[in-house]
Amino acid sequence: MQLGMVGLGRMGANMVRRLMAGGHECVVYDRNPEPGKELAKEGATAASSYKDLIGKLAKPRAVWVMVPSGKITDDAIAELSEILEPGDTIIDGGNSYFKDDVRRAHMLKEKGITFADCGTSGGVWGKDRGYCLMVGAEKQVFQRLEPIFATLAPGESDIAETPGREKNSAEKGYIHAGPVGAGHYVKMVHNGIEYGLMQAYAEGFSIMASANSEELPQDIRYDINVADVAEVWRRGSVVGSWLLDLTSMALCEDKELASYTGFVQDSGEGRWTIQAAIEQAVPAEVLSAALYTRFRSRQEQPFGERLLSAMRYKFGGHLELKPQAEMNRTPAKTGASS
Amino acid sequence: MQLGMVGLGRMGANMVRRLMAGGHECVVYDRNPEPGKELAKEGATAASSYKDLIGKLAKPRAVWVMVPSGKITDDAIAELSEILEPGDTIIDGGNSYFKDDVRRAHMLKEKGITFADCGTSGGVWGKDRGYCLMVGAEKQVFQRLEPIFATLAPGESDIAETPGREKNSAEKGYIHAGPVGAGHYVKMVHNGIEYGLMQAYAEGFSIMASANSEELPQDIRYDINVADVAEVWRRGSVVGSWLLDLTSMALCEDKELASYTGFVQDSGEGRWTIQAAIEQAVPAEVLSAALYTRFRSRQEQPFGERLLSAMRYKFGGHLELKPQAEMNRTPAKTGASS
Repeated sequence: MQLGMVGLGRMGANMVRRLMAGGHECVVYDRNPEPGKELAKEGATAASSYKDLIGKLAKPRAVWVMVPSGKITDDAIAELSEILEPGDTIIDGGNSYFKDDVRRAHMLKEKGITFADCGTSGGVWGKDRGYCLMVGAEKQVFQRLEPIFATLAPGESDIAETPGREKNSAEKGYIHAGPVGAGHYVKMVHNGIEYGLMQAYAEGFSIMASANSEELPQDIRYDINVADVAEVWRRGSVVGSWLLDLTSMALCEDKELASYTGFVQDSGEGRWTIQAAIEQAVPAEVLSAALYTRFRSRQEQPFGERLLSAMRYKFGGHLELKPQAEMNRTPAKTGASS
Repeated sequence: MQLGMVGLGRMGANMVRRLMAGGHECVVYDRNPEPGKELAKEGATAASSYKDLIGKLAKPRAVWVMVPSGKITDDAIAELSEILEPGDTIIDGGNSYFKDDVRRAHMLKEKGITFADCGTSGGVWGKDRGYCLMVGAEKQVFQRLEPIFATLAPGESDIAETPGREKNSAEKGYIHAGPVGAGHYVKMVHNGIEYGLMQAYAEGFSIMASANSEELPQDIRYDINVADVAEVWRRGSVVGSWLLDLTSMALCEDKELASYTGFVQDSGEGRWTIQAAIEQAVPAEVLSAALYTRFRSRQEQPFGERLLSAMRYKFGGHLELKPQAEMNRTPAKTGASS
C-alpha cells in the first residue's frame, strides 16, 4: 500500500527501504532534504514539505511519523493535523509516552483523523532483521495498516515455535497490543526491561573484568578472557540473548571497550516504566536500579557522594583522596575511627 | 574416551546419555541404584560403589562428580580421593564455590590427583541442546579431558558467527577459563547475571499484567495479552533471549502462572557473585536487588515489614489492614497524618 514517512533518520530511512523492498509505495519527507534525495534514488517519492507530502498521497492517507519523542513529535502531528482530512491516519512510530498518545488521538479524533501508536524495536538492525512492532489502535485502524506492519516486521523466520501456541501475528513479529496508547505502553516496558538486562550483563562482566586486578589477593585473582566468556555463553547457556550477541561483538573488537565513554544516556522509556510501576504500585527493584546506574554514569562524584565524604570527614577526620588502586579495592584503614 | 560419572540426577544422567551418544564409554554410580540400572540398559556400565566404579575404570582415570554443591560434593571428593591413584583426575561439574575448588585441588594435589572445575549451564535442555561449559584446570588437565567437554558442549551450530573473532573452543560451547577455580568463578557470575535477567523480565511482565487491574484509572488501564507480548518480543526486538523463549512457553501454557508458587529459591551462585563484587569493590546494584527479591519472595510479611507497620502505627495510629484492592493501588488515605 501507499505510506507517507515523516522523519528520515536512522530508523525512518531504513524502514522506508524495508517497505519499498516489500512492494509498498513510499512518499517521504524530512526537514533535512538530503535523506529524501537518497531515498528518491532508491524508488521513493520525495516531498518538499508537509503539504507536498499530503498532496502526493491518495485518500485515505496513512502518514508514519518517525521523529524524536516529545515536542518534535507533537509539532509534527499538530502540523499534519492541520492539513490531513477526515479518514486519514497518523501513525506515531517513535518512542512517545503512552499518555501523550491518548491526548493526541483525542485531538485528532475531533478532526476525523485516526491514530495508531507503534512501538518499534530493532534499532539499526531492523532493515534486514525486521522490526518488532507493538501497535495501539482501534481495531479497524490496525487492520487497515496491517500490510505495513507485516512488511516492517520480521515475518516468517526460523525461530523455534512456542509449543501449543495458537498462532497469530505475534509469530510474524507484530501485535495489536490494544487501544491507542497500548503499543507505546508495551514498548515502554520493553525498554525498561532492556535497561535491566543490559545492567545485569554490565555488572557481571564488570566483576569478571576486575577479577584480574593485581590489587586482589592471589586466591581470588584470575585472568578471565571476557570476550571468550561472552562468546561461549551464546551457546547452550541460560543467559544467551541478542544483547549478549552484541556484547560478544563489542568485546571481540576491544576487550577493554576503550572507545566507549560509559556516559550512558536514557531516552525516557526507562523512567516512564518506573512511573508506571509507581502508579500501579508494582515493585520494580531491578528496573529502578538499572535506571539509577545510568543517571550515576553521567556524573562525576555528584553532590550525594561529596556529602558522604563531608560526613566521613566531619565525624572521623577522614580525608578522601582521589582513588588509588589499593584504596579502591579494600576498606580504607587510614583516618580516625568511625 | 572413558569417564566415570558420580551422581545421576537430572543433570548427571542426561550428560551420560549425551556422552554415550558421542561415542564415549561411561561407568556410572549413584547412591540410589535406580538411575544406574536405567543407564545400564542404554549402554553404560553401572557400578555399585565408589570402589567398584574405580575398579571398572582404566588408568589414568577421569571421574566426573555431578552432585549438589557443598558437603555432598566435599564428601564425594574425599571418598574418591582415598581410592583414586596418582595421575587420576576428578572433575567437579556442579555449582561449587570457586574457593572450595582451590582448597580441594590443593588437597588432591598432595595425593597426585589432578582436578578440574567445570561450570555447566543448560539445565534439562542440555541433553539435546548441549551444555555450555566453563572449565578451570591446569592446561594439560584441560587438554586431556577436552574430548569429554567437546561432546557435552553444543558443538557446531547455526548460531551466527561473531564478526572478526579468531575462533577457538568458545565457538563450540566450552572454554578453558583459567586455572582451578576459574571455571566455577565464571559460572558463578553467569548465574548472578541470570538472576538479574530473570528479575528484569519478571518486573516488566508484572507491570504489564497489572495494567489490566480494574482499580486503575481508565486512562492508564489496558488489557495486555502478556503471552502475545512475550512471543512478539522473540522476533526482532532488543530483549530477545533464551529466557524469553521459556517465558513465552510458560505464559502460553497459563497466562496467570497459577501453577507456580513464586517462592523463588536460590542455589548459592547469586550470593557468591555479590560476595565477589564486595571483595573486588565492584558495584552490582541490579544483581544485588535481584538476589534480595528472591529472599523476599520466600517470606510472608517478614520482620522488617512488620517493623514498618509498627512505626506507622506508633507515629500516626495507622492500622495496616490486610491488603484490599484499593489499598494496594493508591496511597492509603486513612489514619492520622504522618
